[in-house]
Amino acid sequence: MKNTKIYYKKTKFNDPILFVGLPGIGSIGSLVAEHLKNELKAKKFATLYSPYFPYQIIMLKKGTFRLVSNRFYYAKGGKGKNDVIILLGDAQPLTPEGQYEVNERIVEFFKQLGGRRIYTIGGYSPVAQYIKAPKVFGLATDPEMIDYIKKNGVTPTNITGMSVLGSAGMIVAFSKKHRISAACIMGETGMLEVDPNSAKAVLQVIGKMLGRELKLGNIERLQSETEKMLKEIEETSQSLMFPPPETRGKPKELPGYIR
Amino acid sequence: MKNTKIYYKKTKFNDPILFVGLPGIGSIGSLVAEHLKNELKAKKFATLYSPYFPYQIIMLKKGTFRLVSNRFYYAKGGKGKNDVIILLGDAQPLTPEGQYEVNERIVEFFKQLGGRRIYTIGGYSPVAQYIKAPKVFGLATDPEMIDYIKKNGVTPTNITGMSVLGSAGMIVAFSKKHRISAACIMGETGMLEVDPNSAKAVLQVIGKMLGRELKLGNIERLQSETEKMLKEIEETSQSLMFPPPETRGKPKELPGYIR
Amino acid sequence: MKNTKIYYKKTKFNDPILFVGLPGIGSIGSLVAEHLKNELKAKKFATLYSPYFPYQIIMLKKGTFRLVSNRFYYAKGGKGKNDVIILLGDAQPLTPEGQYEVNERIVEFFKQLGGRRIYTIGGYSPVAQYIKAPKVFGLATDPEMIDYIKKNGVTPTNITGMSVLGSAGMIVAFSKKHRISAACIMGETGMLEVDPNSAKAVLQVIGKMLGRELKLGNIERLQSETEKMLKEIEETSQSLMFPPPETRGKPKELPGYIR
Amino acid sequence: MKNTKIYYKKTKFNDPILFVGLPGIGSIGSLVAEHLKNELKAKKFATLYSPYFPYQIIMLKKGTFRLVSNRFYYAKGGKGKNDVIILLGDAQPLTPEGQYEVNERIVEFFKQLGGRRIYTIGGYSPVAQYIKAPKVFGLATDPEMIDYIKKNGVTPTNITGMSVLGSAGMIVAFSKKHRISAACIMGETGMLEVDPNSAKAVLQVIGKMLGRELKLGNIERLQSETEKMLKEIEETSQSLMFPPPETRGKPKELPGYIR
Repeated sequence: MKNTKIYYKKTKFNDPILFVGLPGIGSIGSLVAEHLKNELKAKKFATLYSPYFPYQIIMLKKGTFRLVSNRFYYAKGGKGKNDVIILLGDAQPLTPEGQYEVNERIVEFFKQLGGRRIYTIGGYSPVAQYIKAPKVFGLATDPEMIDYIKKNGVTPTNITGMSVLGSAGMIVAFSKKHRISAACIMGETGMLEVDPNSAKAVLQVIGKMLGRELKLGNIERLQSETEKMLKEIEETSQSLMFPPPETRGKPKELPGYIR
Repeated sequence: MKNTKIYYKKTKFNDPILFVGLPGIGSIGSLVAEHLKNELKAKKFATLYSPYFPYQIIMLKKGTFRLVSNRFYYAKGGKGKNDVIILLGDAQPLTPEGQYEVNERIVEFFKQLGGRRIYTIGGYSPVAQYIKAPKVFGLATDPEMIDYIKKNGVTPTNITGMSVLGSAGMIVAFSKKHRISAACIMGETGMLEVDPNSAKAVLQVIGKMLGRELKLGNIERLQSETEKMLKEIEETSQSLMFPPPETRGKPKELPGYIR
Repeated sequence: MKNTKIYYKKTKFNDPILFVGLPGIGSIGSLVAEHLKNELKAKKFATLYSPYFPYQIIMLKKGTFRLVSNRFYYAKGGKGKNDVIILLGDAQPLTPEGQYEVNERIVEFFKQLGGRRIYTIGGYSPVAQYIKAPKVFGLATDPEMIDYIKKNGVTPTNITGMSVLGSAGMIVAFSKKHRISAACIMGETGMLEVDPNSAKAVLQVIGKMLGRELKLGNIERLQSETEKMLKEIEETSQSLMFPPPETRGKPKELPGYIR
Repeated sequence: MKNTKIYYKKTKFNDPILFVGLPGIGSIGSLVAEHLKNELKAKKFATLYSPYFPYQIIMLKKGTFRLVSNRFYYAKGGKGKNDVIILLGDAQPLTPEGQYEVNERIVEFFKQLGGRRIYTIGGYSPVAQYIKAPKVFGLATDPEMIDYIKKNGVTPTNITGMSVLGSAGMIVAFSKKHRISAACIMGETGMLEVDPNSAKAVLQVIGKMLGRELKLGNIERLQSETEKMLKEIEETSQSLMFPPPETRGKPKELPGYIR
């Protein structure tokens, strides 16, 4: 396998919008895309494989597995409404060359499906501490798109010189090249590998953009588990600094953690 | 040399089965493939070279050498029985691109020989301690194959999200793409770089699958040496913690170790 | 995107001279090129993108951004004088292959514009301490060029075996191959990531070569800020070694720093 | 520059023998090749450049430079005697792909010149200590060559599983593929980055093979300097362990060291 390939079922779309949520900072892209897929009951119609992905298969239930991939799901929007396409997956390309090739392929594939708008989801991590009330930041290909995301609660980034790494940024750049309107929507986050609180803030923005109330129960459950865990860690580290005699040497076991 | 190449003697096979045992976790693949090759008195008929392998030659006896390679051996199965092909070698490809290219080449080559079934051998390392009674785990391309390995003593993996790295996983993935039935058979292991005990468990499964009793004397000798060595290490580390006066500063020399 | 590409507006040039100032030792290349661009009021006419660059976009003002790139600017020289082209950018290629490809492309592109002379700007760091009165060192493709830079205040390098890494060196090497006269001009520097003092020394040489007085106000402001900061660091580290009681534990905050 | 290229002056050779001495263990290859070049007054006739080499230029005298390269020199053997070709250079390829490509190109180029015998020079480092009386080890493509080097004082390697990294090994492997008789000649060495003593042992073997007494004055001077330096280091480290009062805190400066 020498080249990146997309296998897909031919499907007709009504002016589809693409949401891209791949692994990255705070797992915000993955959390948002997974949640959207479930809420919209989206169906898989395409799979992207690439020799620039990690050389792994991933175990599934009962002796089954899949090769590392990125997967496209879709949900019909209904009369007069845009269809929604969601891209999620196990990994981003590992090398610069891979990032440049795969991310442009994603944009070209979506364009070929008739798409004209892309939102990539990422995390923005200005400080190394948990953010209770995360803002949502964004940048975009054109002034109209910047205005549009601003109206939906996104703060345009304004720090010259900071960079966005990986697919979330690259796909917006290749969108510009291919004259597709695109924005990178980033939940503010810090310290956590999986930040459902920040993902929730992004989902609220997306709900507004889709003119559709998204149920957030699942993500909120994850959020309260995370916050409970953070509180326990805090207490544990305090009690480790000043341990009462009976717990010395018995570090408290922490609850499991998804990635 | 810009491409992966397989040099081979034209050979006719009767519905051959491929066993793949390359370097990896616990050296289980290598131990199993080497043992099978010897037990079945298999003969080399093909060699794979690749610019993605380490750039080394390997010294052999009396001033001879070989370039790093993967090598195919075969044993005729006899009347009505499948021929057996064994793939073993010095290394796996070093880069993602190499893994994607070489592992698919292996599947394509085997398909071209008329093969329809592949078993890759690997190690599965859930904990960092020596496993006295290792289980054999497995995953496969299709439900029939999962049933088949289950009947032969393999426990289907059932942990969503764990991954299998390298050839053992990738070859099964490419088998699926090329509509070849394949399974990845993994001996449970931990801590050891070379684990003959786990390899023995896998060989017992393979013996069942081949309907053939495999002599395990060599691997059992290696196993008892390893366990003796482990016991000595344990005693040494205890005696290092509480050394009797006469051995202070004289660390006990450990027996040699194959890789 | 599989290949390096240069997008450009067709422009006619009068025997143009190219100055190359890319990120590197002491940021001298970047400082000099940025300063030249501003002083000569040069205009962008070409942009180079490459899959060998970092896979990032860079935030600009108010929600805008750019993909990592190298950019060509030009300033007309006026009657009888050479036009000046300036190459600056966000990054150098990340891999050897990338360096060999992109740097030769730059030379070929410039040759295609009718150019016959190139100066690359870099830093030369013989010792790890701040250099108050930095020399400017240089090497070149041909004896005439070596004579020419010597006349303009550059000391030819004379240490067999030292090497110049990256674009500053590679572009001069590819110039030689394509029979373009080129020199690598290096400001002496040490310890600092951004050394405006050394950049100033290089700009004085360039001013001479262009027969044109360059205003150095901006770079001098940066230089005095840097020297002030260095003095404060020195005092801080001394006072940290012998801190007066009232400041113990309160490390002094240092002023911001450009990169 | 996307491909490895060899630029050369057309030259006729009388059944040439190639000696390859590139940077590597103990710098033995480089020392031997450089010495041979000087002793035989060999002349440069070809230069190899590759995008797999480090992206550097190397300063030479008075503002001149060269791009990192491998260079071929030749010396006429005189009536009835083989011409000698020597390959030396600044670096080996940095990546596996580069090693596989460049080393095969070297063999193909030499074959195209009519060559039928290659000796690569390397170091063999079994222990981490200075070797006073280094042996010369070797491996080869065919039994005749093994016999031949044995007769000239080389001990055939006999440790199955050890490997030879880089050009010294790869060129012998590609020689075999292209049906050229080749041997890898390795000076025993340990600990030193530059080991003239081991290089001398190899040069004595080569002198025998060429039926020609090689002057070894230069290499012996380097050897005695190295041994003097080693003795001083030894004394210094002893005196540092038990320093006389007057030298405490004054580590003795060591003489310069070539690389």
